Amino acid sequence: MAVITLLTDFGLTDGFVGIMKGVILGINPSVTIVDITHDIDAQDVVAAAYQLKASYRFFPKNAIHLAIVDPGVGSDRKILVCRAGGYYFIAPDNGILTPIIQEIEINAMVRVENSDYFLKPVSQTFHGRDIFAPVAAHLSRGTALPTLGPAVAEPQIKRLDLRKPKILAGNICQGTIIAIDRFGNLISDIGREVVRKVVGPDQVHQAVVRIGEREIDGLVSHYQSRKLNTPLAVIGSWGTLEIAVNGGSARAYFGARKGDRVRVGKRV
Amino acid sequence: MAVITLLTDFGLTDGFVGIMKGVILGINPSVTIVDITHDIDAQDVVAAAYQLKASYRFFPKNAIHLAIVDPGVGSDRKILVCRAGGYYFIAPDNGILTPIIQEIEINAMVRVENSDYFLKPVSQTFHGRDIFAPVAAHLSRGTALPTLGPAVAEPQIKRLDLRKPKILAGNICQGTIIAIDRFGNLISDIGREVVRKVVGPDQVHQAVVRIGEREIDGLVSHYQSRKLNTPLAVIGSWGTLEIAVNGGSARAYFGARKGDRVRVGKRV
Amino acid sequence: MAVITLLTDFGLTDGFVGIMKGVILGINPSVTIVDITHDIDAQDVVAAAYQLKASYRFFPKNAIHLAIVDPGVGSDRKILVCRAGGYYFIAPDNGILTPIIQEIEINAMVRVENSDYFLKPVSQTFHGRDIFAPVAAHLSRGTALPTLGPAVAEPQIKRLDLRKPKILAGNICQGTIIAIDRFGNLISDIGREVVRKVVGPDQVHQAVVRIGEREIDGLVSHYQSRKLNTPLAVIGSWGTLEIAVNGGSARAYFGARKGDRVRVGKRV
Repeated sequence: MAVITLLTDFGLTDGFVGIMKGVILGINPSVTIVDITHDIDAQDVVAAAYQLKASYRFFPKNAIHLAIVDPGVGSDRKILVCRAGGYYFIAPDNGILTPIIQEIEINAMVRVENSDYFLKPVSQTFHGRDIFAPVAAHLSRGTALPTLGPAVAEPQIKRLDLRKPKILAGNICQGTIIAIDRFGNLISDIGREVVRKVVGPDQVHQAVVRIGEREIDGLVSHYQSRKLNTPLAVIGSWGTLEIAVNGGSARAYFGARKGDRVRVGKRV
Repeated sequence: MAVITLLTDFGLTDGFVGIMKGVILGINPSVTIVDITHDIDAQDVVAAAYQLKASYRFFPKNAIHLAIVDPGVGSDRKILVCRAGGYYFIAPDNGILTPIIQEIEINAMVRVENSDYFLKPVSQTFHGRDIFAPVAAHLSRGTALPTLGPAVAEPQIKRLDLRKPKILAGNICQGTIIAIDRFGNLISDIGREVVRKVVGPDQVHQAVVRIGEREIDGLVSHYQSRKLNTPLAVIGSWGTLEIAVNGGSARAYFGARKGDRVRVGKRV
Repeated sequence: MAVITLLTDFGLTDGFVGIMKGVILGINPSVTIVDITHDIDAQDVVAAAYQLKASYRFFPKNAIHLAIVDPGVGSDRKILVCRAGGYYFIAPDNGILTPIIQEIEINAMVRVENSDYFLKPVSQTFHGRDIFAPVAAHLSRGTALPTLGPAVAEPQIKRLDLRKPKILAGNICQGTIIAIDRFGNLISDIGREVVRKVVGPDQVHQAVVRIGEREIDGLVSHYQSRKLNTPLAVIGSWGTLEIAVNGGSARAYFGARKGDRVRVGKRV
């Protein structure tokens, strides 16, 4: 049972996603298709890149992850298929795979060129339907990577210049809010290990988290650890420092936006 | 072919739901997963409870219904699995199963404790991914309830204090708007049988429905029974008294909100 | 492997769609169900008709397309099942099939009447659940059209009076914006062939597209053919003239709405 996942900025209001599924099922009727999300902000490659990184590993091995946020559709930008970490990834060469490549080793990568695997005629405005979907479907039936196009070396592909958490004087880690979920939780890029390192492994209650001009004392284990409508910091489901408000929205509470800075250190 | 349904307040914008499906498919690749809705208002346990009650019976027997609106995630609240009415239900012990339990008999119920069936490491903020999804998947493969944890007796679990329709003087039934659908239809908790009782079995045209200061005369069979933009009362698809506006929104027409009272009686 | 598609105005917030899938799976557990969209504006039969036309052909042959935008639910409007172009279509007889019928020949059509194939009791407000879903499921298991009800001849069914592109003096084609997608792209009903005819087959760079008081010079191949935030015209994924803004929204740029006129001709 092959699995194909879809992560796009196509939304669910137009028929884009349904049509892609139709094309896939026409080639491989027994594949299971899973939506990761289609509500990435229009053309927000960075948001898609982070969402893909947060999601891919929870699918069965050999899942084929299609990530399509593709403002360059129809231009001469490449389409990449790569094998990494036991998964397949298909995406435009616009940096969307950057966090994946930083995290796991690429075993093989090709540029999609073999139009035998495309839906004809190929439009220049909807490669999701005409190239990505059929290529994923053929891949799910066992088509080998080299059949799809010539090999591409890692240094040749585009990368996003993603800000990374850094250690400041006083052993304070400064990171960035990279996502805000529907509950208003602020998800940072500061991983669990970094938090442990700056705070001390068993002293998370001594942590101080700073966002804007405000401070949160200590790291707690879950949302209800603090009183209702009280802000708190946790290691969230992304495995990173997350700022929440029990029963409320940290986005509203802090007036926070993606890209805002967050700091974590040890109370002295 | 096993079926797992999902009813949550996770939304479809973040990857939560897709990730849960990935976890399920990793354990049972041949299960069919159906979304009931993911747009329950954040942490609105009552709305989820009513939606679950309105939906569960339309799925094939042995379907596994996962209902996750769970503000207490990570706290010491229990997670329940129960067998009732030929279905399985998995939910946090926060009252979400109240209307089900009022309607159908529980055949067996356990508290989920056996971490052999969890995804490790278990986060304290996303049990949907780490506990609910894998437990549902194992259940769909035949894992027996007692394997998952110790039995729980019905009186031990949490219940919502849901208002119930009551009969007032003059044989008038007073109920509550418990849901408003996308068309603006106002769905009450007054069941078909109660309406028949207060109005008389074959005299629905003599019914008077009151909402706020306004009255609707008679019960009709379908929306177009009244002129365009005219309010009407029907027995809707929930099997209860529903107030609608033909071609329009009763929510807007009446300025109605969930929790508003509605009365039905017989014209004298 | 049978495929059933769903195109409705039910939204995803209420349980309507999930419940329909439950009913379908109870009758045919091995069918694959694909959502085209559920976000058609409430009761907008015309929008549904265009979306269906834009989508149906991308599904595997024998797919069963359920199109339910049905303000007349419960009235005496007919429910149609037809076989056309290698597909099945199930829809209320309110004109939703008009563009399909204009495009492809109907091989067989019946009015659904045989209540053996309905879910009982049949509500008068949710035929999606009680009639459309079970009929589609039975069809996917091989039930023959004549079993479902009596034949209906094409002239007997309702048609939408859809405006069609027309050729004006000076060999200019005037059409209509029939859809606006999530990116704000304006999709017209002027097909690729008509554009070629009025402009000349290899002279698309000499095309002039007019919307409101503004003009766009030339047809380009893809969105990034113009500078960022610049309007452009392409043959889009619907196979028709489409107006876009690279990296932006043509809807916002032109203040455009569905129903607006668009003209294309040759620069003289």
